[in-house]
Amino acid sequence: MSDNTSASTRPAPLTLLGLGAMGVALARTWLAAGHPLTVWNRSPGRSAELAAAGARVAATAAEAVAASPLVVACLLDDASVREALAEADLTGKDLVDLTTSTPAESRTRAAWANERGARFLDGGIMAVPPMIGVPEAGGYVFYSGSREVFDTHREVLAVPAATRYVGADPGFAALHDVALLSAMTAMFAGARHAAALVENAGIDRKEFGALLAGWLTAMAPATAAYAGGPVAEDPTSPAVAAAGDAALLRTAQEQGVDTALLIASGGSVSGM
Amino acid sequence: MSDNTSASTRPAPLTLLGLGAMGVALARTWLAAGHPLTVWNRSPGRSAELAAAGARVAATAAEAVAASPLVVACLLDDASVREALAEADLTGKDLVDLTTSTPAESRTRAAWANERGARFLDGGIMAVPPMIGVPEAGGYVFYSGSREVFDTHREVLAVPAATRYVGADPGFAALHDVALLSAMTAMFAGARHAAALVENAGIDRKEFGALLAGWLTAMAPATAAYAGGPVAEDPTSPAVAAAGDAALLRTAQEQGVDTALLIASGGSVSGM
Ligand SMILES: NC(=O)c1ccc[n+]([C@@H]2O[C@H](COP(=O)([O-])OP(=O)(O)OC[C@H]3O[C@@H](n4cnc5c(N)ncnc54)[C@H](OP(=O)(O)O)[C@@H]3O)[C@@H](O)[C@H]2O)c1
Ligand SMILES: NC(=O)c1ccc[n+]([C@@H]2O[C@H](COP(=O)([O-])OP(=O)(O)OC[C@H]3O[C@@H](n4cnc5c(N)ncnc54)[C@H](OP(=O)(O)O)[C@@H]3O)[C@@H](O)[C@H]2O)c1
Repeated sequence: MSDNTSASTRPAPLTLLGLGAMGVALARTWLAAGHPLTVWNRSPGRSAELAAAGARVAATAAEAVAASPLVVACLLDDASVREALAEADLTGKDLVDLTTSTPAESRTRAAWANERGARFLDGGIMAVPPMIGVPEAGGYVFYSGSREVFDTHREVLAVPAATRYVGADPGFAALHDVALLSAMTAMFAGARHAAALVENAGIDRKEFGALLAGWLTAMAPATAAYAGGPVAEDPTSPAVAAAGDAALLRTAQEQGVDTALLIASGGSVSGM
Repeated sequence: MSDNTSASTRPAPLTLLGLGAMGVALARTWLAAGHPLTVWNRSPGRSAELAAAGARVAATAAEAVAASPLVVACLLDDASVREALAEADLTGKDLVDLTTSTPAESRTRAAWANERGARFLDGGIMAVPPMIGVPEAGGYVFYSGSREVFDTHREVLAVPAATRYVGADPGFAALHDVALLSAMTAMFAGARHAAALVENAGIDRKEFGALLAGWLTAMAPATAAYAGGPVAEDPTSPAVAAAGDAALLRTAQEQGVDTALLIASGGSVSGM
């Protein structure tokens, strides 16, 4: 109890590699929460604002890694993490990788980090930079891999966004992350398809946008069923489902909109 | 004022053609609200429950049409509406077509109805049968075409679900309907893709379904931007958007899931 209290009264130091849009958003929240922060970015010139706010700016990734027991990476892709850390001594470090990657890449990076003496926790950020440090925006980060790293640094990790630990398999955070992003990508493509259908039809675009967003927001909870939740009985007959699909395809043709998305979506409008 | 009052105290009679899943749901609400209702279905045997609840059952579509000044059709597709009404006298009738169709089909059906002496209003139902007669479920019907028909029968039409009149062009209800259904179809396909990615990975399916539905529900309001609403400035760099897309594609390949939907969705995970 008293250990917990003293631990939380003195913000832990950490190192952040990568000062892109997301890295800068993360850094600001740790500085604002009083964490001693060392930052590094491949190209110079991204750290002036953070230095003014109290960050220590390291000249090399190796120097940045040496500065703190906890090292967070938020770089372009998995290859850039391997490159950036090529010369760093990871012995005894806790490496938290918030870079978007595939499950296989995360597993490989975990084994690579372990071989070099580090514990590894992968993260997948379910938020855009403006949502970081804004709990009411609802963003969060999936974590998987070392449960010890997650527990040890729980408070630090919770500063920028809510946390969800999804398993010891270091690939699970990426799997969750990519699965949700893939579904969102298809939803956004569907919205673009809808917008293309009504384009030039003389329909008020703002009103249509509000209808579209309201409809998708109302229908989105039904997607829980696709992953094993309770499936509502679907009263749609196969004939009417097929007729509905045909109407979507013919309307796209009538309006001169590419049917590729509908064909790849490949399913009845009832969807179940 | 007194005219309005007396009109609303005596529920207006109407005819309904089509007793499929949707037709039966509609019929129940009109009977429950006290409207004298004549029903017809191509195949016999669908009307016993409705007859017991007070519906008059017509032997032919022509007889059903003759019974009421307002005729509502809810059949399989546009061709079935033309066929069902081939022998009916539409002179002086108000025809409301709730059958899913394309904008061009609805315009053709409107002209066809007008030539035969009827006023025409097209409808697109944004609800499944269990949502009919349940205002809190949030379903509604798009209407377009004759404003006079919509105004004259406003109260009758509002019994099964909320109404949204979207324009005098008889194709606009179908255009709105199909646009929203198309976007939903892509969203559902995205959810199926996400579910396929995590399948057999040892992830709790119920928990994943809840995460997926929560994420899509949270992100769906952003789709308003695609149709001309206010677009939030996107801080995602082209490089990181491309890296994100590549991670989605590679993950699908790693997990043995078809990439066709992602390719047809064709856009960055930021989507804007
Ligand atoms: N932005 C978002 O909305 C968002 C949302 C969720 C997750 N993410 C993830 O967060 C990560 C960072 O995204 P971001 O928006 O900050 O990207 P960004 O603005 O494009 O920044 C990319 C960062 O990666 C660095 N970098 C690229 N290649 C490198 C290499 N070979 N070695 C070392 N550093 C390298 C860049 O350094 P230079 O300055 O030297 O180019 C820069 O710091 C990505 O994995 C992204 O998928 C972003
Ligand atoms: N169900 C939904 O979730 C839903 C949601 C929104 C909109 N809708 C739309 O509502 C309409 C009806 O859907 P539903 O679910 O009620 O379909 P359904 O259960 O499959 O019923 C189809 C109806 O159409 C009739 N029909 C088919 N071909 C016909 C023809 N050539 N002549 C006369 N009647 C014919 C059928 O009569 P028989 O009994 O003789 O076959 C039956 O009454 C469709 O346009 C559908 O897109 C449905």
